[in-house]
Amino acid sequence: MRLSRYFLPVSKETPADAQIASHRLMLRAGLIRQTSAGIYAWLPIGLRVLRKIEQIVREEQNRAGAVELLMPTIQSADLWRESGRYDAYGPEMLRFADRHDREMLYGPTNEEMITALFRDAAKSYRDLPRTLYHIQWKFRDEVRPRFGVMRGREFLMKDAYSFDLDEAGARASYDAMFVAYLRTFARMGLQAVPVRAPTGPIGGNLSHEFHILADTGESQLFYDAALEDVTREELLSADASTIARMTSLYAMEAEEHEKVTDCPVPAERLHTRRGIEVGHIFYFGTKYTEAMGMTVQGPDGQALYPQMGSYGIGVSRLVGGVIEASHDEAGIVWPEAIAPFKVGLINLRADDAACAAASDELYAKLETAGVEVLYDDRDERGGAKFAGMDVIGVPWQLIVGPKGLAAGVVELKNRKTGERQELSIEAALARLAG
Amino acid sequence: MRLSRYFLPVSKETPADAQIASHRLMLRAGLIRQTSAGIYAWLPIGLRVLRKIEQIVREEQNRAGAVELLMPTIQSADLWRESGRYDAYGPEMLRFADRHDREMLYGPTNEEMITALFRDAAKSYRDLPRTLYHIQWKFRDEVRPRFGVMRGREFLMKDAYSFDLDEAGARASYDAMFVAYLRTFARMGLQAVPVRAPTGPIGGNLSHEFHILADTGESQLFYDAALEDVTREELLSADASTIARMTSLYAMEAEEHEKVTDCPVPAERLHTRRGIEVGHIFYFGTKYTEAMGMTVQGPDGQALYPQMGSYGIGVSRLVGGVIEASHDEAGIVWPEAIAPFKVGLINLRADDAACAAASDELYAKLETAGVEVLYDDRDERGGAKFAGMDVIGVPWQLIVGPKGLAAGVVELKNRKTGERQELSIEAALARLAG
Repeated sequence: MRLSRYFLPVSKETPADAQIASHRLMLRAGLIRQTSAGIYAWLPIGLRVLRKIEQIVREEQNRAGAVELLMPTIQSADLWRESGRYDAYGPEMLRFADRHDREMLYGPTNEEMITALFRDAAKSYRDLPRTLYHIQWKFRDEVRPRFGVMRGREFLMKDAYSFDLDEAGARASYDAMFVAYLRTFARMGLQAVPVRAPTGPIGGNLSHEFHILADTGESQLFYDAALEDVTREELLSADASTIARMTSLYAMEAEEHEKVTDCPVPAERLHTRRGIEVGHIFYFGTKYTEAMGMTVQGPDGQALYPQMGSYGIGVSRLVGGVIEASHDEAGIVWPEAIAPFKVGLINLRADDAACAAASDELYAKLETAGVEVLYDDRDERGGAKFAGMDVIGVPWQLIVGPKGLAAGVVELKNRKTGERQELSIEAALARLAG
Repeated sequence: MRLSRYFLPVSKETPADAQIASHRLMLRAGLIRQTSAGIYAWLPIGLRVLRKIEQIVREEQNRAGAVELLMPTIQSADLWRESGRYDAYGPEMLRFADRHDREMLYGPTNEEMITALFRDAAKSYRDLPRTLYHIQWKFRDEVRPRFGVMRGREFLMKDAYSFDLDEAGARASYDAMFVAYLRTFARMGLQAVPVRAPTGPIGGNLSHEFHILADTGESQLFYDAALEDVTREELLSADASTIARMTSLYAMEAEEHEKVTDCPVPAERLHTRRGIEVGHIFYFGTKYTEAMGMTVQGPDGQALYPQMGSYGIGVSRLVGGVIEASHDEAGIVWPEAIAPFKVGLINLRADDAACAAASDELYAKLETAGVEVLYDDRDERGGAKFAGMDVIGVPWQLIVGPKGLAAGVVELKNRKTGERQELSIEAALARLAG
């Protein structure tokens, strides 16, 4: 993408109301713009990151055998009356009437709707087990939206729902999602800690939250230091034994930790850090299937209530979460798997014919090789281009200048390490497109 | 995808309230389920088609140089007061107050929001021209939603907005979108007719609608028969001359046609058919930039109001539109470019070890080759499997049965032509994966 034809309003100023790094950087680097309190437009570069995160989430859901569908954003109040949650839910639920005065709401979650859909479609035990998911915009009318996309009102969430014949099946579905979550966050370059959680308003008897460790997290975590020893490779090849190992290690949010009178972890191994909740999984049995009269015919001909679980990932929140976990003073440092572009190509002298020709050629060759390139072809000062590319956080910067070109070389900079190296155009292409 | 693990509730019944073929077939083939009046959940197979149509739309927008972003569904009423449309818009606009009693709405379109975003970001003539688009859910509170996704309340729309320095530039942006539309519909296997349209409530002085010809369309069209002679190849390589040729040919909606006193088309060349509007493009000058005070500094240092256009495609409506244009008595007949799967693999005898082994192997090999396969591996009667696959409308059916297998052959059926042919497993693989 040529910057001269793109829409990337990079700002030098730090917005006053942005309290945390990710919020500041998302505004400065032109990822988002607020359109109402807690509601954001995703500008092109922000949308690219959002879609990459969404795609990793999707691939891992599919890999776990979950089936994607898409439920609408607007739901009927009557549906929520079936479960009893319409009255139980607080003012976070955005409620309104349509032109025929029917009570409607903007879905904050979808347990009721998926149960109703599955109730209409599944008749027999042979239709189980099934895990269904969607990735859709949700709305929670936060009283005080803050931290940018981390606690916005309109947000993108992946929510999956499992239906099983019995508790053993439900546990297997729960574990499959647990593995999917470990892989999902590891692929994004994140260290996520699973924390045993109280089940709260969704109800049920088993729940884990997944937290990214970051100083600006809203939660305070206490956990066994051994959790930090789990390697990325182990997470990417996670299975039941990984879950057994990780869940055997102590990890609690402060509020729960304080209730614990005999913490099993010796003080020197009890670490505490702040965390950002990016995923939450629940097993809640027959709470919704019973309330909503959802049965299937069992193998013995008797009707039974399927066992359910639900599994959320905050897709838009993750964009902020990754930045909290990966930035420096100059800007964002994207993990390559979710970077908006792999390469930032900087032409230091847009008014120099040789520089322009060499840059155009590099751009064309990288694009042809399928490498995603953000090409700063504008007639601007080099300093502004460097600073802009640093803020945006593209993993590799490829710099074309008149001096180097005369000597037959270009410069390649690694955004994360800062390492710079001069190499021939051919060598640079081979490195980036290889 | 194995049908035994999928979520595809095919229904034999024809819903009573479904008046048109696409609505009936989308319900019967398990593409959608209604969750409230005019609001639908997209079941897995429907979502696959929706995403393929969306991706073709996206590719052609990008090809035309438009830049993708994503605006939120919920907008502030104040934004619409800037343009004067908050009071002008009818009860189709879904309005509500948030918990702080701020007036909000579910966006039916985005002229105001994109103008506000561009106003904050663009300062100079060098930031022009620019066409920005997004593909996002919209809501129009239709008084009588009908025809399934063709006139639903929550719907997926691509809307693009162009900003130009002057009228000539705006016309070039308009033409670039015109070409993109011709290519977009041609790629989906559709014959779309551009119809000169009155500009209506959006205002301005130039507008075209794009209609699919289908007997169940809501509009009656009158047009020069020569429009039917434009070939798919011409549309796929459309340029300014294609536009000139097509727009020189008479085409009007009935309401406008009746006002014409001297129709230039001789009676024998004046065709009339019903059409489904799937796209609409507008050039409306400075209507919004003036109303909302959006200026950039021109080359001469003077502030000027950019010229705008807007360009919509009904992405979710297209799913119904394609079915209206392409179905038979047995069900849907998907054009290959947007089919949910390319191949429907039918194992006629799931209880026969040889049939299951051969089918499993075919499935694995096709998947490995990147072919999208819906594999009916269920223990059901052959007749039900054939009928189900016909309703779903997958372009190719690959049938594995015990008799054929004993003779070393499988059967390949073309859904559109009904043509059947027996061939060896290797030949079938080569044909489908080639």
